[in-house]
Amino acid sequence: MSQPLKRVVVKISGSLFDRPLSPKKIRDTANVFKAASSEMGIQFIVITGGGILAREYISAGRALEMDESALDQVGIEATRMNARLFLAALYPDVYPLIPTTLDEVIAAVELRKHVVCGGLQPGHSTNAVAALIAERMRADLLLNATDVDGVYTRDPKKGGESQKLAVITTSQLRKLLDEGKMIAGSYELLDLVALKIIERARLPTRIIKNEPEIIWEVLKGKQHGTLIMAD
Amino acid sequence: MSQPLKRVVVKISGSLFDRPLSPKKIRDTANVFKAASSEMGIQFIVITGGGILAREYISAGRALEMDESALDQVGIEATRMNARLFLAALYPDVYPLIPTTLDEVIAAVELRKHVVCGGLQPGHSTNAVAALIAERMRADLLLNATDVDGVYTRDPKKGGESQKLAVITTSQLRKLLDEGKMIAGSYELLDLVALKIIERARLPTRIIKNEPEIIWEVLKGKQHGTLIMAD
Amino acid sequence: MSQPLKRVVVKISGSLFDRPLSPKKIRDTANVFKAASSEMGIQFIVITGGGILAREYISAGRALEMDESALDQVGIEATRMNARLFLAALYPDVYPLIPTTLDEVIAAVELRKHVVCGGLQPGHSTNAVAALIAERMRADLLLNATDVDGVYTRDPKKGGESQKLAVITTSQLRKLLDEGKMIAGSYELLDLVALKIIERARLPTRIIKNEPEIIWEVLKGKQHGTLIMAD
Amino acid sequence: MSQPLKRVVVKISGSLFDRPLSPKKIRDTANVFKAASSEMGIQFIVITGGGILAREYISAGRALEMDESALDQVGIEATRMNARLFLAALYPDVYPLIPTTLDEVIAAVELRKHVVCGGLQPGHSTNAVAALIAERMRADLLLNATDVDGVYTRDPKKGGESQKLAVITTSQLRKLLDEGKMIAGSYELLDLVALKIIERARLPTRIIKNEPEIIWEVLKGKQHGTLIMAD
Amino acid sequence: MSQPLKRVVVKISGSLFDRPLSPKKIRDTANVFKAASSEMGIQFIVITGGGILAREYISAGRALEMDESALDQVGIEATRMNARLFLAALYPDVYPLIPTTLDEVIAAVELRKHVVCGGLQPGHSTNAVAALIAERMRADLLLNATDVDGVYTRDPKKGGESQKLAVITTSQLRKLLDEGKMIAGSYELLDLVALKIIERARLPTRIIKNEPEIIWEVLKGKQHGTLIMAD
Amino acid sequence: MSQPLKRVVVKISGSLFDRPLSPKKIRDTANVFKAASSEMGIQFIVITGGGILAREYISAGRALEMDESALDQVGIEATRMNARLFLAALYPDVYPLIPTTLDEVIAAVELRKHVVCGGLQPGHSTNAVAALIAERMRADLLLNATDVDGVYTRDPKKGGESQKLAVITTSQLRKLLDEGKMIAGSYELLDLVALKIIERARLPTRIIKNEPEIIWEVLKGKQHGTLIMAD
Repeated sequence: MSQPLKRVVVKISGSLFDRPLSPKKIRDTANVFKAASSEMGIQFIVITGGGILAREYISAGRALEMDESALDQVGIEATRMNARLFLAALYPDVYPLIPTTLDEVIAAVELRKHVVCGGLQPGHSTNAVAALIAERMRADLLLNATDVDGVYTRDPKKGGESQKLAVITTSQLRKLLDEGKMIAGSYELLDLVALKIIERARLPTRIIKNEPEIIWEVLKGKQHGTLIMAD
Repeated sequence: MSQPLKRVVVKISGSLFDRPLSPKKIRDTANVFKAASSEMGIQFIVITGGGILAREYISAGRALEMDESALDQVGIEATRMNARLFLAALYPDVYPLIPTTLDEVIAAVELRKHVVCGGLQPGHSTNAVAALIAERMRADLLLNATDVDGVYTRDPKKGGESQKLAVITTSQLRKLLDEGKMIAGSYELLDLVALKIIERARLPTRIIKNEPEIIWEVLKGKQHGTLIMAD
Repeated sequence: MSQPLKRVVVKISGSLFDRPLSPKKIRDTANVFKAASSEMGIQFIVITGGGILAREYISAGRALEMDESALDQVGIEATRMNARLFLAALYPDVYPLIPTTLDEVIAAVELRKHVVCGGLQPGHSTNAVAALIAERMRADLLLNATDVDGVYTRDPKKGGESQKLAVITTSQLRKLLDEGKMIAGSYELLDLVALKIIERARLPTRIIKNEPEIIWEVLKGKQHGTLIMAD
Repeated sequence: MSQPLKRVVVKISGSLFDRPLSPKKIRDTANVFKAASSEMGIQFIVITGGGILAREYISAGRALEMDESALDQVGIEATRMNARLFLAALYPDVYPLIPTTLDEVIAAVELRKHVVCGGLQPGHSTNAVAALIAERMRADLLLNATDVDGVYTRDPKKGGESQKLAVITTSQLRKLLDEGKMIAGSYELLDLVALKIIERARLPTRIIKNEPEIIWEVLKGKQHGTLIMAD
Repeated sequence: MSQPLKRVVVKISGSLFDRPLSPKKIRDTANVFKAASSEMGIQFIVITGGGILAREYISAGRALEMDESALDQVGIEATRMNARLFLAALYPDVYPLIPTTLDEVIAAVELRKHVVCGGLQPGHSTNAVAALIAERMRADLLLNATDVDGVYTRDPKKGGESQKLAVITTSQLRKLLDEGKMIAGSYELLDLVALKIIERARLPTRIIKNEPEIIWEVLKGKQHGTLIMAD
Repeated sequence: MSQPLKRVVVKISGSLFDRPLSPKKIRDTANVFKAASSEMGIQFIVITGGGILAREYISAGRALEMDESALDQVGIEATRMNARLFLAALYPDVYPLIPTTLDEVIAAVELRKHVVCGGLQPGHSTNAVAALIAERMRADLLLNATDVDGVYTRDPKKGGESQKLAVITTSQLRKLLDEGKMIAGSYELLDLVALKIIERARLPTRIIKNEPEIIWEVLKGKQHGTLIMAD
């Protein structure tokens, strides 16, 4: 990875948009992409998560007896609101609209600017969307910038001894994921669809902590977080 | 107004969606429409405001130097998230999608179910959208269910002696509004565009407090809040 | 299930459209839906598979180095060609267009006619689409009319002793599916996404052989194939 | 304004398309933009008015009891017919389609050619559309090329002594406009919505007579017509 | 034809919209459809021609060197402006939007109201569009309400002895048409595409003079104009 | 034709996609375009025919009593499946989506990559679509790469002495075509609509055999097949 990358898809954790909204944090993250773009010639496609906004509206929607796929849609709207803020922070080197279908993403990437979007369709997490886009764009790297700094053998948030893995294969990762239930808004790390796409497309994927310096160093070739390799 | 109404457009204040989101309050309001629908045969078109969600994202967007019409768009997305919750509360007697253009609203109304939407386009407040829809649908009544219980000669929130008006003409109301600056998200009561549409279409319009009983009583013909009359 | 059903989602195996195309077989299957509709008042949403057509074009596309999600799109086009034939067989009691998004499906269902569609989006099998639609429509039943007459503990096509199950839970079924790789066009029985949706929505789902009499009898309440139950 | 401009939004009066249609006049105006583009590197976004065509169809529509927002739509169609002629005159250095939404305008501007459009939505005059686009594009200048050569303290068409103003503030201009009624097709000079947008975006705006030489000289930095300044 | 008709497609000559626009003439024609609808239960699909408006803008566009298919598009816009006026005259028993694609026409017809549209796509005259729609809707009758009262062996406008035919076969009619050049806006009577569609769909088609009483009498079963029969 | 061409529209016969699908043949044809693009700077717009796939589905659809314009639509879907394969073979120097309307084609061509599409609308053969696009793009050449190597005075497939013409005028060609009936999927050589467009736009058009070397040599200026000239 010492060679310059050309096209990088980044899934940004929705926690970047936690309350109170911090324009400064958003701008700091966007600035890493701007710098990497001028210095290394990378075109970024950024997919923003839904965060607290998605969770609150999904929770209210569930109390109002929305079905799960309508809840997915609510979550997607939340990711798009976050995407608009991130787009503003990347301005003006960015496609000025938020694509809402895979075809629109593809057409926007043609214009050779960065592209920002949220979720695309019910039944797909933003992780799966990021993987689909990375596959379609034949991306050089898929980065999952999330709240934990990699894959652990146990959930680091829930205590217990646990160990961060430097590398994990897709089949090993699938075993870790299989127990979870797919409830709208609660997709964690990488869901099964995302995983299968990473596997079939043999996408180089890295799970890292969502911090500007970490993203920067990874783009420069340093090893952070956990590398996922298709097997 | 003792005769049964047939088509009523209601602008619901975004404050119905204040934090923490209250599914109960949303459902209580929706239930008034359901009851009025069965008892009086009314078809409702409901436009939801953006509330705190719109204000927070617009504020962050402004800090990120978004232009005002992009901020309008952010506000519109917020109104649509609120619309989804209100739609769920009206289910199943409601058109199942959120229209995003005036044409989609018109086509949806054809299906003879209630319709819920948020804002439609930058440069138009949800009040103006409600007025446009009411005009196009030749609505029998436009209700603006808001945080104050009518038009006062002074802002009731800011103290000072003030007096609620039972009736006000559009030209009198315009004088009250003219001083304000149109900043995204800060439209208050009725902005000038809404007012002009009410005037040109001679729409019977009433500003009332957004409380279920008040809405119910107004639909039954009782005089609450302030009636706006075109002159 | 002795009560009349109201809304049934049916995934029809692409093998109904095997070469040489048999208008008679297609019509026979459609006639079951027409009869069930008049006799039992059921509204059907039918999702057609891609069959041999999808497999041939996907195979050629792969030889031309299409990425997997573009191959998914090719497969979706094939399902839509099949859908057009099935739509013709249901004419005139059917929505006259093939919806291409979940929102279009939802809007079409409002018109109270049968609806026919193929796949909707890359990354989702037609099984997953059928489950998503069933969830959103709050369907009374999801039927998967396929090439085998239920779930076996071993693949009945590949020989070896095997046993058809009358009932299986979603968690048991997941274990059977987990080993497979998700390659475009090779989704079998129910893929993991479909399974998760069935689970979260607690959709009554039945896998049956795609034969007109079997479908008819199942709609009348008879037990055929395998019932999948969320646990 | 002696520095070269980069992005200029021009509202062209519908009177350019008065009957009998004069291809020569249209071409002469377009040629100014072509020359300014090669000489000064300006990208133009041109919004055409509806003129006599809009007025005649709106008048007939009103006789047929169309509501005002449907009349707005008729007026918009007229502006788009005019836009097609202007686009032809700018060919080939122009985006080849007429955008019909703000998002389409934004995407078209990305392609670095001139863009021509008419109105976008009911309730907004082409003046307001021009202001919205100028705001969103962060235009260096908004030109309103109209039938009068600036803002007068009295309407120059209706006689009476009157005086052209070199500069006017938005708040002064609002006072002049407030008396008018907003009837479809009769928006004059700048309506209130356009004015508010100019104000909030602090857009440098100039009202000039729609003549090729005037436009040319203003683009070169000469003072014609009336400059509107936000206060 | 003594039996009540059910679905009738009518191409209305653009000359109904000649200058000065006559709301009265438009309304008189629309009233025939309204009466036929209540009395005979007919659903109408009306396609309006472009008339003088199309001709003038096409002529100007040609002077500005537009290509022919762009001129077609200009002509289509003109037909849609006329369609809006006709729609207003049919209000409220009419689908409230102007469909712009064949799919939209089909979906609109489902709603069981009259539908009004103009042209749909470059390369197709409104006559061809009317024939395509009639074919797709399996219309009981295609009426071409035009400026002449039928097919003559010589052009009745250009003098010379000529004779109106009561019946003509499609192959006879083709011979009459073959000499013409297909220039945008100058399609006369029935162009070749329309004729081929009438032939392949075996559509009962009648060319009549566009006068309210004539239309009315034809709908009641009287023989006017010229009947075209596929051979 | 010794000068380098700039924009060439090519209609590729559907027989390139005969069964069994040959990725090699598709790639060989695409490679000619790639080579011509690098060597001669040509931008290609390629329209693919429907071939055996279209014929089979149209035949089944007709047995199911689809109307002809729905059959056209089925044929269009088939052409788009073929287009996807051809697009893959041109990757990555190609617009990544298949346009489905003339406007989308126009917008895609702006991006300065090759564009591939199938049919666009019922009632138009792919030949007519190719001619429409060539007209709108002001193409330097329209190539019809088909199963015969030019226009013969008798059908070369059906035996009998016949003679290939080096040049034919549009009016001569029309006489040859006039006897045919326009049935979906059976358009041969050039249908009447295509012919009329070639005539009105005075498009230089050549009918050649669909073989890579022939296409290459024609692009280099050699005389193959039959040249069609407007008269």
